[in-house]
Amino acid sequence: MPSISEKGRQMPASPIRKLVPYAEAAKKRGSHVIHLNIGQPDIKTPKVALDAVRNHNIEVLAYSMTEGSEIYREKIAAYYAKKDIHVTAKDIIVTTGGSEALSFAMGTIMDAEDEIIIPEPFYANYNGFATAAGVKVVPIASSIDTNFALPPIAEFEKLITPQTKAILICNPGNPTGYLYSKEEIEQLATLVKKHDLFLIADEVYREFTYEGSQHYSILQVNGLEEHAIVVDSVSKRYSMCGARIGCIVSKNREVIQTAMKFAQARLSPPTFAQIASEAALETPQEYFDEVIEEYVSRRNILISELKQLEGVKVAVPQGAFYCVVELPVADADDFAQWLLEKFEMDGNTVMVAPAAGFYATPGLGKNQIRIAYVLEKDQLVKAVQILGRALKEYNAK
Amino acid sequence: MPSISEKGRQMPASPIRKLVPYAEAAKKRGSHVIHLNIGQPDIKTPKVALDAVRNHNIEVLAYSMTEGSEIYREKIAAYYAKKDIHVTAKDIIVTTGGSEALSFAMGTIMDAEDEIIIPEPFYANYNGFATAAGVKVVPIASSIDTNFALPPIAEFEKLITPQTKAILICNPGNPTGYLYSKEEIEQLATLVKKHDLFLIADEVYREFTYEGSQHYSILQVNGLEEHAIVVDSVSKRYSMCGARIGCIVSKNREVIQTAMKFAQARLSPPTFAQIASEAALETPQEYFDEVIEEYVSRRNILISELKQLEGVKVAVPQGAFYCVVELPVADADDFAQWLLEKFEMDGNTVMVAPAAGFYATPGLGKNQIRIAYVLEKDQLVKAVQILGRALKEYNAK
Repeated sequence: MPSISEKGRQMPASPIRKLVPYAEAAKKRGSHVIHLNIGQPDIKTPKVALDAVRNHNIEVLAYSMTEGSEIYREKIAAYYAKKDIHVTAKDIIVTTGGSEALSFAMGTIMDAEDEIIIPEPFYANYNGFATAAGVKVVPIASSIDTNFALPPIAEFEKLITPQTKAILICNPGNPTGYLYSKEEIEQLATLVKKHDLFLIADEVYREFTYEGSQHYSILQVNGLEEHAIVVDSVSKRYSMCGARIGCIVSKNREVIQTAMKFAQARLSPPTFAQIASEAALETPQEYFDEVIEEYVSRRNILISELKQLEGVKVAVPQGAFYCVVELPVADADDFAQWLLEKFEMDGNTVMVAPAAGFYATPGLGKNQIRIAYVLEKDQLVKAVQILGRALKEYNAK
Repeated sequence: MPSISEKGRQMPASPIRKLVPYAEAAKKRGSHVIHLNIGQPDIKTPKVALDAVRNHNIEVLAYSMTEGSEIYREKIAAYYAKKDIHVTAKDIIVTTGGSEALSFAMGTIMDAEDEIIIPEPFYANYNGFATAAGVKVVPIASSIDTNFALPPIAEFEKLITPQTKAILICNPGNPTGYLYSKEEIEQLATLVKKHDLFLIADEVYREFTYEGSQHYSILQVNGLEEHAIVVDSVSKRYSMCGARIGCIVSKNREVIQTAMKFAQARLSPPTFAQIASEAALETPQEYFDEVIEEYVSRRNILISELKQLEGVKVAVPQGAFYCVVELPVADADDFAQWLLEKFEMDGNTVMVAPAAGFYATPGLGKNQIRIAYVLEKDQLVKAVQILGRALKEYNAK
């Protein structure tokens, strides 16, 4: 029997994958499982986007342009301009989700054995794309005690080797909810220029910043044009994760021209999803105002409820819709499984994402979980009550 | 300025990419360019597929399942059963086009420096996926003189090394139009079992076989279950290239479980496109009968017209909608550019795909072009007239 690749063996499974059968078993037993584990918003997709697809008049569903339609890319550039990010259509390649944008970025700038420094905890799929590309992830720890702020630049410098090609950040962060300040971004900019590295920023949660705090893009830093690569997506912005449309953006011509060769191999991004995404740009500002207001109130209630639990430490997110929570348990993986396998309160239990899967350093995050607050407030409150009771019972075992 | 990857430098550009500016210039001059160069069918997408998307009732465009929805995969399995291919939903992962299926297949079974043997000429993007994966393509030449039949098995055996992991075929072939016989498939099956290799078959043109000839899938070979990986797509079958839906199919559990890890990293295939693709399975048989009849008559007229041209040799395709044509020129690349830059007949010219880009061996195919017969018959006839006149003029220079 022929054998699979070493790379295939090393590809990480999703951090919650092994919990899925326990969740299914719990549901079969009749438990109601509240899902705190996934970043799938319950927010409605803008009607303008859904209607555009309903009203399509396609007769031959042909390939679109490899880089996405000219008009859609021009509209994306106009969207960025409103965010004080100044790029043109030719700096943009439309991709199949932020996932593909990241995969193109890695392929464009890194060969096997090259290194990319990423503050941890980080979005778990970065590991998958790095493994697929044969690239080595070099983690740099951020801490719940500083709300997962940028680690000191001196710590980055210690990790830079001749193999280092890039630093990757997620801003605002999944799973941390941390929003990097303008000063932090500028420190990173100085660092990558000094060492001639690329700076990749996953800015898919750009819209989700709270209490008047402003997102500062790496594309806004003067003089960083040749170094900055932004990965973006419509998934969370318009609650259209199923569209699978994103983009890669860079003022570096060689980067875009090279990414185009990767894009040509896969022919084009999906057409219906581009129709929806182009229309989504017409979404009125009130939609975002309402969504942000909803997330802020969800975050507030979630955090205040969590803070009442004994022995629980929680970072206060300034963006995105995740937070990392430290629990008074030795092994959050075991606790998460126990919640699904053994625990129930009035017929309910919760599913959480153990945070160890968001760290690359073995042993880190073992007592942490990630919570996505993409549920209604009453569900969040109930979920925290369940967590509180469960922690007591689990620790009394 | 930070530098791009070696891999990025090596990524091949599309074989027709450098002709595109000349085509645009010709159009600007007022020439009408007949495109023989692209495999974008002009055939209408089945109404049932387009209507399903028009009638969607989605409110939250959420992620679909990573492997594609259960019901869609069950329907795909039922489609295969009608083709005497017996697989179940769990042998199938829905992908973003055949492109992604191929990329998953390569990642699942091959590491950097591993080798894959591919009969040439082959679909040019195989080079792109191999380069992206760091995999080495080992070409084995097939010849226009045998209609691009399978090269002798003894020739394959000469190329097998300890690094060889797989043989990849496209059946029916792009760009050759060659349909492998049951005997040829069985010879390959014996070979891969003997050397413990995988056999990957790109069967996206399965439906397009002519004059009663039957497509024989590698999934129909008894005893090949652990070796066979099929790459499939809805793009050509239902003339919905813009959907970007395909699948990877294998009875080898380890292959599917490993491919799932690559699939998890990119989250899910596009939702609207899955709706269209699921509905497309309801396309009535008459649709295919009409489409095949149309392609057969296009092929017949194209081939008979081409055969009247002096010094032109043409393979007779038994499937797909491409053919490779040998021209009485030294450099088809130069001729293709000249057609766009210097030639016009009654205001028309043609754009062809030089075939060298479909070969991995330098120098092969230099006097060949690929023609896609995805145009109306009168356009095909006109295009061949133009080619005939152009060849005379070009060779008289």
